[in-house]
Amino acid sequence: PVKYHIDELYQSNHGRSGLAHITVAGAAHHGMRKIEMWLQTFAPGVQTPVHRHACEEVFVIQRGAGTAFFRAPDGGVQQVAFQQNDTLIILPDMVHQIVNTGQEDLQALVVIDSPPIRIFTYSDWSIADVQAQLQQPYYWDRAC
Amino acid sequence: PVKYHIDELYQSNHGRSGLAHITVAGAAHHGMRKIEMWLQTFAPGVQTPVHRHACEEVFVIQRGAGTAFFRAPDGGVQQVAFQQNDTLIILPDMVHQIVNTGQEDLQALVVIDSPPIRIFTYSDWSIADVQAQLQQPYYWDRAC
Repeated sequence: PVKYHIDELYQSNHGRSGLAHITVAGAAHHGMRKIEMWLQTFAPGVQTPVHRHACEEVFVIQRGAGTAFFRAPDGGVQQVAFQQNDTLIILPDMVHQIVNTGQEDLQALVVIDSPPIRIFTYSDWSIADVQAQLQQPYYWDRAC
Repeated sequence: PVKYHIDELYQSNHGRSGLAHITVAGAAHHGMRKIEMWLQTFAPGVQTPVHRHACEEVFVIQRGAGTAFFRAPDGGVQQVAFQQNDTLIILPDMVHQIVNTGQEDLQALVVIDSPPIRIFTYSDWSIADVQAQLQQPYYWDRAC
């Protein structure tokens, strides 16, 4: 089929508390090879790991608000507050973390290229890039 | 920057009446190489040309309703009505046309891979694939 209704697509937390993940367009169900799109909902306080990936990533904030943390050129950690109708553009290998620092659910459409995603996670911001751990398949790709 | 507010991004009809186009994430302004994202608004009655492209494309309908036409395996033309919160998944080289057949503005987030887009247009559905005309750069890419 060509058309899907988002509310009828499979949703799961894939073992991650406070997350609701829907693959809106993906390889297994839709035949995508170049683009993958997710709709992700984070409960208040929920955060992604500190992580990086070689793919590009775009967030379009559908509702709620939060904070994006990312590694600055000087090695420090910068933060950017965002809210509904903002976009976040994560270029390749940018170390970043998304946190729902708001009081409501944070929902975002997320697009990556070259699925499935290869995520390197950092247990915290003090970890060196070479010590980050490859997590593949990532949570929602284990179901495929 | 990492964050952009959609309402503050450049919007233009790029010479196409009834269209409002915003490049939400693109090569020229955001350094994207693998993914491009647009927010497009079509007035009632406005349609894309019949066209194809080798890239994958995903529409997420933000508001309004319309009809997607596409070439069926038997050579005929199929149509699918869609509305808010539906997604359309256009696989490579699928000949298709999006029409705002509703009474309100139709707004969609659109994602493609491998920008800039190479669109082959058909003056109507009777045109053979080999006779479709390459339009590159496409309207909004001429401004870059």
